[in-house]
Amino acid sequence: MIKDLGLCKAAAAAEEMEQVAAAGEEEEVPKAQFSDRVPIRSIISRGDGGSGLAGRKARVGGWVKTGRKADKDAFAFLEINDGSCAGNLQVIVEASVAELGQLVPTGTCVVVDGRLKLPPAGTKQKIELRADKLLHVGSVDPAKYPLPKIRLTLEFLRDFVHLRSRTNTISAVARIRNALAYATHTFFNKEGFLYVHTPIITTSDCEGAGEMFQVTTLLSEAERLEKELLQNPPPTEVEVEAARFVVQEKGEVVSQLKAAKASKQEIGAAVDQLKKSKESLAKVEERFKLKPGIPKKDDGKVDYGKDFFARQAFLTVSGQLQVESYVCALSSVYTFGPTFRAENSHTSRHLAEFWMVEPEIAFAELKDDMNCAEAYVKFMCQWLLDNCLEDMQFVADKFDKGCIDRLKLVASTPFIRVTYTEAVEILEDAVKNGKKFENEVKWGIDLASEHERYLTEVKFQKPVIVYNYPKEIKAFYMRLNDDLKTVAAMDVLVPKVGELIGGSQREERYDVIQSRIKDMGLPLEPYEWYLDLRRYGTVKHSGFGLGFERMILFATGLENIRDVIPFPRYPGRADL
Amino acid sequence: MIKDLGLCKAAAAAEEMEQVAAAGEEEEVPKAQFSDRVPIRSIISRGDGGSGLAGRKARVGGWVKTGRKADKDAFAFLEINDGSCAGNLQVIVEASVAELGQLVPTGTCVVVDGRLKLPPAGTKQKIELRADKLLHVGSVDPAKYPLPKIRLTLEFLRDFVHLRSRTNTISAVARIRNALAYATHTFFNKEGFLYVHTPIITTSDCEGAGEMFQVTTLLSEAERLEKELLQNPPPTEVEVEAARFVVQEKGEVVSQLKAAKASKQEIGAAVDQLKKSKESLAKVEERFKLKPGIPKKDDGKVDYGKDFFARQAFLTVSGQLQVESYVCALSSVYTFGPTFRAENSHTSRHLAEFWMVEPEIAFAELKDDMNCAEAYVKFMCQWLLDNCLEDMQFVADKFDKGCIDRLKLVASTPFIRVTYTEAVEILEDAVKNGKKFENEVKWGIDLASEHERYLTEVKFQKPVIVYNYPKEIKAFYMRLNDDLKTVAAMDVLVPKVGELIGGSQREERYDVIQSRIKDMGLPLEPYEWYLDLRRYGTVKHSGFGLGFERMILFATGLENIRDVIPFPRYPGRADL
Repeated sequence: MIKDLGLCKAAAAAEEMEQVAAAGEEEEVPKAQFSDRVPIRSIISRGDGGSGLAGRKARVGGWVKTGRKADKDAFAFLEINDGSCAGNLQVIVEASVAELGQLVPTGTCVVVDGRLKLPPAGTKQKIELRADKLLHVGSVDPAKYPLPKIRLTLEFLRDFVHLRSRTNTISAVARIRNALAYATHTFFNKEGFLYVHTPIITTSDCEGAGEMFQVTTLLSEAERLEKELLQNPPPTEVEVEAARFVVQEKGEVVSQLKAAKASKQEIGAAVDQLKKSKESLAKVEERFKLKPGIPKKDDGKVDYGKDFFARQAFLTVSGQLQVESYVCALSSVYTFGPTFRAENSHTSRHLAEFWMVEPEIAFAELKDDMNCAEAYVKFMCQWLLDNCLEDMQFVADKFDKGCIDRLKLVASTPFIRVTYTEAVEILEDAVKNGKKFENEVKWGIDLASEHERYLTEVKFQKPVIVYNYPKEIKAFYMRLNDDLKTVAAMDVLVPKVGELIGGSQREERYDVIQSRIKDMGLPLEPYEWYLDLRRYGTVKHSGFGLGFERMILFATGLENIRDVIPFPRYPGRADL
Repeated sequence: MIKDLGLCKAAAAAEEMEQVAAAGEEEEVPKAQFSDRVPIRSIISRGDGGSGLAGRKARVGGWVKTGRKADKDAFAFLEINDGSCAGNLQVIVEASVAELGQLVPTGTCVVVDGRLKLPPAGTKQKIELRADKLLHVGSVDPAKYPLPKIRLTLEFLRDFVHLRSRTNTISAVARIRNALAYATHTFFNKEGFLYVHTPIITTSDCEGAGEMFQVTTLLSEAERLEKELLQNPPPTEVEVEAARFVVQEKGEVVSQLKAAKASKQEIGAAVDQLKKSKESLAKVEERFKLKPGIPKKDDGKVDYGKDFFARQAFLTVSGQLQVESYVCALSSVYTFGPTFRAENSHTSRHLAEFWMVEPEIAFAELKDDMNCAEAYVKFMCQWLLDNCLEDMQFVADKFDKGCIDRLKLVASTPFIRVTYTEAVEILEDAVKNGKKFENEVKWGIDLASEHERYLTEVKFQKPVIVYNYPKEIKAFYMRLNDDLKTVAAMDVLVPKVGELIGGSQREERYDVIQSRIKDMGLPLEPYEWYLDLRRYGTVKHSGFGLGFERMILFATGLENIRDVIPFPRYPGRADL
């Protein structure tokens, strides 16, 4: 497993320095490679909490979390954090070094040269820094700073997305999110998958345009034109007539000269004039036709032929269909990128812009797909335990006591696998035994969130994969099973969030998928390219999609999806 | 350095098998973890070209590159490729195993169980597979298949983006692109940078809306409403009047009952009726106000308050400004994602949708920024040499003889660094010595592509960083130098593509950046959040952007940017 090399390297370098110092010399703690300071992580996230660095010089920079003056203003104690880890470094500044009043407000940025010392026995931290010199102060007026040092709710912080990464929670989430993204690339690379960038702007409208954002330049073009026509009004009909008259006149001149057998030169000059007048008429006529507003066709519909891509374009809802074209050549691929839904939902589980991981595997059946999904989720859980434990401990303390145990459980326990039919039987049994669900349970229903949570949280208390769903409730591209009633689809359900992954074996049989498209009342034409993948050299293949923010909710135990993406987009809000 | 673990693992497993076999047992070559076949790479991309696996059983799947029948149709020779590497595996099928005619067309998909054998001495390949059983054939009608086995131009292939990954060139580019993406994440993780997902949909309009795509639901909402109003016409004025009359009537009934001191029950019933009639009036009035088309404000302008985000929203042109809010808390961050330009340019160097890598470093000056850019580019070049040599050799043979040497040069040579002023002097000297440029050279111009190419390809013949540009030609956020004439900006120029990276130290001084915004005639209000980063705990920081497709062009020597992204978007085209 690839450990966090940056840390290992810094820690190794620090330990080397120790040996140098032990040999009698005195050295600075090495700086980050492209910056002017030592990351605080390199000091305090060592096995010894930093105590082995005592006596060493270091330059550190960061933002004051807590500052206070002490000993009749002879000292200031500053807890500073630079985001490289969850922990803070305590910096002690004497009044002789700097004006202390400007240093203590929460949010102040400082860069300090100093010497690492062991703190008095009995204090929590293992190392602290005595400042020799203050190199930079980015001050804060506490009366105006929007994030004072009081407990702020996550909801309040959503109004300050540009500052909220300075809080302990949002920075811990940022580090966990980063770790999960890196784990994702590491896992798929290790397994021989190629990362494919599927398009964000798409003209494949596969799940219905209703919930898609449109991408257009028509509105801004219309505004530009309106402005331009105001400044420079279009020609009137009279002006167009006048231009036509000029052409007619110039034409007559040419005819007359030809009839009079004038010199080539004279005729040439007149023809030139005629040409110019025609060009100028064409321009006038074109401008005369300009109409303010969105361009429309004769039937009154918007003329998307005039849009940037010469047709209607949308933001993608999934890269799956496009990545299938790559799997039918490269065998193991995945996409990891933003996807979009223009749904008007105001829940804690939906965003208009969110990230999805979508692997696709050729020569693979549903069983392989489930194996891959299980291995991937386990890998991410183990990765967080190995690489992000300090941040996990923070969120465990603050939000969800059980989150570390949940990661351990998922990393170590085989996932339960039940068919949809078995799952419905389990739910029906529960109802018989007195369990109340809001949504009726019977074969054929789409499992509701309450059903999924019951299976994973109550019945099995571990991750559950439900597979082989009724074809009526699933998409046309899922492979029809031999029973002709179900399709080879699967959902991975986990405690805390319910559905984390949805996937399927894809229908690779040309005739079957063609009739599935027709049966669902969809037009064939937009899917011709997709059918080509089955027409020419078809291959069985399978894949799934994981909602990346759902994974972060699952890992951290946070409740609202708006807090686990840096810049959340939802109805009415798209700050920055 | 992290090697390709998938391959190492497979190769190690294969070698282990060898030992088992040497001990007298006979084993299959291990399959890919989530699939039913051995990746061809695990067979032929070993040090011995696969010869050590002779005698072993294997199941392979792939697409026929070249197929031919031989020995009076007793055999078929199939060169198959599964995208896991550039090379093909030769599969030999006897007529007794399958109907050979269906196997030989280019593009056919086959899955074969067989035995690996050493080929006859003197043949190019080191191993081949004798088929025992054919498990799957995805056939191709050669008369219809759009990609016949003839030399197809890259331009031709752009009309078949769903199939072109089956060609040698596009699949090699896909593997190189994947390697560069993985190298990017590896490099920044190693250096302690956190990956931050900046938003795709943005309301920060920082480089002028002219070249931005708009994201909206207004057009589809208008279409939906028009359809709805056709099916269910809005009320007429008479109907509204009638509804008002009912309310009035019901109100009078209530008054009369009250005056007559009727029972509570009677009055209650009448009040209920009044309430209902009011509700129904409200609905009628609302529907009466519905107007087809885009919602407009009283001044005739589009009412974006009715749009999904309650304001105008665009596709991002860069994640820089947003990622700056994270660097002012987390110290070392980067973003890697899609960016967009609605420019009407039809060149071989521009796309409407392209990927950018944008690191941002706190406590870092321009020098650190240049060091980071140089180290990152070198890392990517070395990565390709270490992990992608076979594909690099393919593109070297086919497109650009010099591309491998170029990678070696860049990986090993320190980049030249010259100030803008020095660069202009060099160009002026060149002009004095007879060099002709289309664009005039003098201090103050923005360097044109021809100037950049001259510096990197002719003058220095290696990568060049030009820094400290005149402030007039650069963005407001770049840090003003002490000369008050230049800003701390830098561009990395490389042979073959010219500008690969643009970056700068950011202006961290509140007063300076505020007056720079004003001087440029920009409004302050949209930048208030950005100014907050300087108002509260400001920190010096620097960053840059690398055009990911430019890097692929640089590495591969391909000429057209449309061939190095899976699904290119440009004016008039957004296939799939």
